[in-house]
Amino acid sequence: MPYLPMIYVAWADGALSLEEITEIRSRLAASGGIPADSWVILESWLHPEHPPTSVELAELRDRIRELASELPDAERRSLASLGAAMARRRSAEGSRWESASSLRTLEAVEELLGVLGGEATRALLAPEASPAPPSPPEIPEPSFPVETLRTYLAGPHAEIRARVLALITRHEFVVPVGASTRERREHVLERLQDLADAGLGRVAQPETFGGEGNVPGSIALFETLALGDLSLLVKYGVQFGLFGGSVQQLGTEVHHERWLSSIGSLDLPGCYAMTEMDHGSNVRELQTRVRYLPDEDQFEVHTPHRRARKDWIGNAALHGRMATVFGQLEVDGEEHGVHAFMVPIRDDEGALLPGITIEDCGEKIGLHGVDNGRLSFDRVRIPRDHLLDRFGTVTEEGRYESPINSPGRRFFTMLGTLVTGRISIGAAAISASKTALSIALRYSSQRRQFGPSGEDEVPILDYLTQQRLLLPRLAECYALHFTTQALIDDYGASTDDEALRSRVEVEAAALKALASRHAVDTIQSSREACGGRGYLAENRFGELRDDTDVFTTFEGANVVLLQLVARGLLSRYREEMGDLSLRGMVRVLADRAGTEVHRRNPVRSRRSAEDHLRDPETHLDAMQFREQRLLQSVARRLKSRIDDGMDSFHAMNECQDHLVSLARAHAERRVLEEFRRAVEAAPDPEVTGVLTRLMELWALSRLEEDRAWFLETGYMEGSQSRAIRSLVNQLCGELKDDAVALTEGFGIPPELLRAPAARLPDDRD
Amino acid sequence: MPYLPMIYVAWADGALSLEEITEIRSRLAASGGIPADSWVILESWLHPEHPPTSVELAELRDRIRELASELPDAERRSLASLGAAMARRRSAEGSRWESASSLRTLEAVEELLGVLGGEATRALLAPEASPAPPSPPEIPEPSFPVETLRTYLAGPHAEIRARVLALITRHEFVVPVGASTRERREHVLERLQDLADAGLGRVAQPETFGGEGNVPGSIALFETLALGDLSLLVKYGVQFGLFGGSVQQLGTEVHHERWLSSIGSLDLPGCYAMTEMDHGSNVRELQTRVRYLPDEDQFEVHTPHRRARKDWIGNAALHGRMATVFGQLEVDGEEHGVHAFMVPIRDDEGALLPGITIEDCGEKIGLHGVDNGRLSFDRVRIPRDHLLDRFGTVTEEGRYESPINSPGRRFFTMLGTLVTGRISIGAAAISASKTALSIALRYSSQRRQFGPSGEDEVPILDYLTQQRLLLPRLAECYALHFTTQALIDDYGASTDDEALRSRVEVEAAALKALASRHAVDTIQSSREACGGRGYLAENRFGELRDDTDVFTTFEGANVVLLQLVARGLLSRYREEMGDLSLRGMVRVLADRAGTEVHRRNPVRSRRSAEDHLRDPETHLDAMQFREQRLLQSVARRLKSRIDDGMDSFHAMNECQDHLVSLARAHAERRVLEEFRRAVEAAPDPEVTGVLTRLMELWALSRLEEDRAWFLETGYMEGSQSRAIRSLVNQLCGELKDDAVALTEGFGIPPELLRAPAARLPDDRD
Ligand SMILES: Cc1cc2nc3c(=O)[nH]c(=O)nc-3n(C[C@H](O)[C@H](O)[C@H](O)COP(=O)(O)OP(=O)(O)OC[C@H]3O[C@@H](n4cnc5c(N)ncnc54)[C@H](O)[C@@H]3O)c2cc1C
Ligand SMILES: Cc1cc2nc3c(=O)[nH]c(=O)nc-3n(C[C@H](O)[C@H](O)[C@H](O)COP(=O)(O)OP(=O)(O)OC[C@H]3O[C@@H](n4cnc5c(N)ncnc54)[C@H](O)[C@@H]3O)c2cc1C
Repeated sequence: MPYLPMIYVAWADGALSLEEITEIRSRLAASGGIPADSWVILESWLHPEHPPTSVELAELRDRIRELASELPDAERRSLASLGAAMARRRSAEGSRWESASSLRTLEAVEELLGVLGGEATRALLAPEASPAPPSPPEIPEPSFPVETLRTYLAGPHAEIRARVLALITRHEFVVPVGASTRERREHVLERLQDLADAGLGRVAQPETFGGEGNVPGSIALFETLALGDLSLLVKYGVQFGLFGGSVQQLGTEVHHERWLSSIGSLDLPGCYAMTEMDHGSNVRELQTRVRYLPDEDQFEVHTPHRRARKDWIGNAALHGRMATVFGQLEVDGEEHGVHAFMVPIRDDEGALLPGITIEDCGEKIGLHGVDNGRLSFDRVRIPRDHLLDRFGTVTEEGRYESPINSPGRRFFTMLGTLVTGRISIGAAAISASKTALSIALRYSSQRRQFGPSGEDEVPILDYLTQQRLLLPRLAECYALHFTTQALIDDYGASTDDEALRSRVEVEAAALKALASRHAVDTIQSSREACGGRGYLAENRFGELRDDTDVFTTFEGANVVLLQLVARGLLSRYREEMGDLSLRGMVRVLADRAGTEVHRRNPVRSRRSAEDHLRDPETHLDAMQFREQRLLQSVARRLKSRIDDGMDSFHAMNECQDHLVSLARAHAERRVLEEFRRAVEAAPDPEVTGVLTRLMELWALSRLEEDRAWFLETGYMEGSQSRAIRSLVNQLCGELKDDAVALTEGFGIPPELLRAPAARLPDDRD
Repeated sequence: MPYLPMIYVAWADGALSLEEITEIRSRLAASGGIPADSWVILESWLHPEHPPTSVELAELRDRIRELASELPDAERRSLASLGAAMARRRSAEGSRWESASSLRTLEAVEELLGVLGGEATRALLAPEASPAPPSPPEIPEPSFPVETLRTYLAGPHAEIRARVLALITRHEFVVPVGASTRERREHVLERLQDLADAGLGRVAQPETFGGEGNVPGSIALFETLALGDLSLLVKYGVQFGLFGGSVQQLGTEVHHERWLSSIGSLDLPGCYAMTEMDHGSNVRELQTRVRYLPDEDQFEVHTPHRRARKDWIGNAALHGRMATVFGQLEVDGEEHGVHAFMVPIRDDEGALLPGITIEDCGEKIGLHGVDNGRLSFDRVRIPRDHLLDRFGTVTEEGRYESPINSPGRRFFTMLGTLVTGRISIGAAAISASKTALSIALRYSSQRRQFGPSGEDEVPILDYLTQQRLLLPRLAECYALHFTTQALIDDYGASTDDEALRSRVEVEAAALKALASRHAVDTIQSSREACGGRGYLAENRFGELRDDTDVFTTFEGANVVLLQLVARGLLSRYREEMGDLSLRGMVRVLADRAGTEVHRRNPVRSRRSAEDHLRDPETHLDAMQFREQRLLQSVARRLKSRIDDGMDSFHAMNECQDHLVSLARAHAERRVLEEFRRAVEAAPDPEVTGVLTRLMELWALSRLEEDRAWFLETGYMEGSQSRAIRSLVNQLCGELKDDAVALTEGFGIPPELLRAPAARLPDDRD
């Protein structure tokens, strides 16, 4: 009798082979202490040739359950105690099972059977699948005031963010379901007009021309817009950021006067036509020719061959009337490099102008609401003052003049104006991640699957792998958020500070590369974290992925940007290196000749105590060490190649992966610094607390990710790297109960979040 | 005069600040050896307050070019020799520049200026952007016979692959552009009928019922089908694989007789209804109730609550007439666990049958041609012989009987029949990768961007980062291809070999997880590798990604499968562990008590000579060590938790990342073994050669990826891990010229490849 529970479990979980049953029988026999009558029963149940049938087992289970239902909880904890209690209650042999020693006998048998008594008991006594699903898990109380965090994240541009949200949460901003590409494009154009009508196209423009003179605010605006339809975002970026920005930044007063206002109101829809079929990343080699014709005092814009057509130009396929066209300027037989020109492409009725040919680029993976086109020019004439001539002009006398004599420096100064776009795209990528993480974390807090035997299934966010999939990415999202806000501020402050501006250019390239990579990766992980539910279109991972994927490519392909960052670091002055020369690098090397990166005290750096590993100084120390060391070693490698007579292109190429690692290392060090500054400035001790944990998680998971490098260089030892791994696990556990609240900090209104998978019990239907 | 080229370069690249110019001037003055008259000219050009204007610089450049055009190549190599030669030819001072010492003077100045003479010279003398684009790069001759490789890859199932290709390359198999979801679904149904009409629905069915009795062939068929429309693939999988397979594998003769033929011909379209709203991964807890009603001798199938509806069921929303429904069987008040039942859901006209409710799951991210539905049953009656009763039956007397008495073992035996689906999905994922890599590598061999100054731009496949992005993935694609073929063979041989079958189950789970991860990752990388061009829908990365993404989720979520693999390894006998008990593991531990994994001779394992690092024994040694060590350490960690009284669920959860690493380590070790076997069996020395390089690249890039672990455990040292990194770079270089030919080995016909980005010069328009 008292053995029944064990016997049932032994057979029912299917884990025993017949050989093992035989083995157990003989061990039981050998162990002694089992009364003869029990032995008979036991033997009959453990007969290898006559195992109990499935029906017998099912009946046995029900009998045990019935008996057990009358027992107090304390006696239901292990198979042995359950068995003993049942025996005591029900059978004639009861009294025999009252002593502690008889319980030990039973426990010994349990041990022999090799079952894990506690949980097997729970499983055995668990009720049949209930007719109703368990109630949804509760969201734990957050450890911090959510509203305070939300306000802190919104930062100094809260007002403009609120203006954007008020608009884009309106019902007409919902993307029409099942709309064709043509309808999507019209819808986006209408919404773009709404934004312009609300004055949102002029935020960056100078106050003299009716704008708000608020460039940083315009980036916060863009960041917020990215919580809605990303096609609208990109169309907005083309019209007001790239097209409007080119007039503002590359043009001079006459151009501002003439065009800024109608661009801001969308009366003049336009394009930014830089890329060509054959030249995307390598802008310096654009093939479009712009010749100054002195007799007519005009420029002639010309596409010399089919592969020099302007490609991918947003707003070109349908709506653009004017385009900022980048081409090689030729004056009086002299080439002066790439310049930007205002070229009318359609008349006020939208008809193509003479000499202009436009094709639609065709269906894209995403951004269906953006009309990208391919543009070509057949000796199109434009007036002389359509040259955006801040950095180079053609005088009335037909002479070329530029405030920057060096064509190389001129080119990079012009390209420097791209920086707004890069910061904006980085910021927008982070917004898309925020959306994805909000959906995935909310779903993970609610979705149950599997659980301890005999208990409710657990929310999938209780799984370590699920935490590892999502929480470090949540931390990264915060890290990049703060870095972006700092960069926006720096950018705002850089107008009259050339050194700061160069630094901002490097950091913008780095941020854009990191943030777009983070977005692609986070959206995919979030999709998978939601299992099948994540594959439903309504849960939005598909559209997020399809629309943001290209953020890794436009505004500079990431791998190209990271090399730009590395070059910037090598020369310490980006403008000096932009031209691919290695001069600056060689100079850096000369400066440092003989000096080695200060090697940290190994005792200090190798400590693996938790408080040491959680110390932000430790993280910064490691990241600084890595950056310096990578900088030195890549410089050394480049130099040795050049000394051997290799040209810089091939030398760079042989060290490309190294350069990219350097750029990432730099970017992460910067992110950590900004994260730390943001934590220190947090307005509330509980907010500081949760942000500190997030920062630790971020920093440690980055170090964990790159621990091979630290081990290779001897900066870390195995024990330390293992300690980091378990600390990352621990931090995931510390943060999981705050995860949903942390996504609430992003302040994404439900109208924008939309995904049914993101519903919490309160708003469940 | 002879300084002009240097002066031009110094100014023109914009790299000099005014301070630096001043510095250079004074150094030049200090260096002496410059003739006074030259010094005057030099000074005038290097005047910090009066830099040359842009026009002066442009004129200077043209003058240099004109002069240089008359020089022989030898004299155009450095700025110094160019300057000297120009001086000799043209000016009165010519003779002064003939001596070697004067050349050295010039070189010293060049050095001072800090410019890199050779490439600056080329840049200076490069022709203006030419009016026509450079000709497309040539594809190098492959190092091996492509046709031989193709035949080898097609393997023993070449004939069935050819049958599939002959069909799906027909024009009606092209997915209609811009079709609505409804049209896509109809199109897929029609094509499915074409496949059935060609006999492709019966390949796996027994010959007795008109099939070909060729299960391995049916997987090769599926693999080939995956080169075409993936919606068709999945619909095919649902009808013939899951629905047909369930009848074949879970049913008995009466069911085979009654249904197999009409399933194979698609006269009976059906569903596989396992998943429910609340239960995806955790199949054992399904809530659908199936009660035997003795009075009627029927079953009653019932959905107890809304969240128990069958969810995601392919073929349910529109076309299915019958469904294999998984539910909890109850006979005479006894629960017997999950069983499968044939439940008619629509009549011959397609109208829903009484008691059946079906909703469309709605728009998905991809697989738009598959009609997934949500099914529920309101006390639906089915005859007793609709229970697929191979592993459990209800007798005429209304008694439950099963050849497997243990419900746990019974459940896992039933689920074991999922193995065909898993291998098939793994194989299909690899096919999708092959498509993506073919497009990206062909494009990368043709697309030029940037280049050494003054030379043609290089194909982007010349970039190390591009090679690193694509070539290890190409190697992985080959690795997984061979592993799949071996697994198909093993599966074919496992019918009567239970031990082999359990092994195949573990390997199938591992392969599916690895292959679907590889596909997602490779498709994304391929997209990015093609820059903007990759974002055009016509280049197919969007559809590939959207359709294959879910391969990480269905047929078992990857993270769940990897845990299953780890459990299988822990117990060494999967069936014994399937029930989550830790018994098997504890036993393994006991077996090995005290024995340590044999620690390799450090001298041997730490050698970093190239031949040692390229030796497959080295790779295998490392991978075996890792797997054994991870197995032991995770077992130890689990045991200590259990000894401390933690239940197995929580113990497993705390070690989840460790378990997943173990599973991956195991899978990679197996892949390496199969790759090696395939290389050894290759039919031609040149094919062996290229496959060997691929295998080395694969193995080393896997070791590189996980080098942190090897460093942590002391198996590798930093120097060795660095040597591996540079060897991976070197192998990328060795393989890049074969890359396009290696994709040709996949044998994807152009009708299926389609993407314009994949066109080579021969087939360019
Ligand atoms: C949706 C969309 C909208 C766009 N809108 C506009 C617009 O409005 N106006 C406009 O002017 N342009 C626009 N673009 C163009 C965009 O700026 C370019 O796509 C981008 O600059 C990349 O150029 P590419 O596509 O030619 O890629 P390429 O330069 O050909 O690069 C392709 C790939 O080659 C590799 N590669 C290239 N160079 C290097 C290197 N040096 N080192 C290592 N690897 C390298 C990388 O993998 C890279 O991804 C848009 C593009 C898209 C897709
Ligand atoms: C397009 C499509 C077609 C399908 N077709 C069919 C069909 O024809 N028939 C059918 O029966 N089913 C079908 N399915 C269902 C499919 O089999 C399930 O989606 C799959 O089993 C996963 O279940 P789930 O979606 O409920 O995810 P869940 O089980 O809820 O898991 C969600 C996530 O939780 C986490 N998680 C869950 N368990 C664990 C764990 N133990 N440890 C760590 N993390 C965990 C993982 O991140 C996982 O991705 C289909 C699904 C899709 C999307």
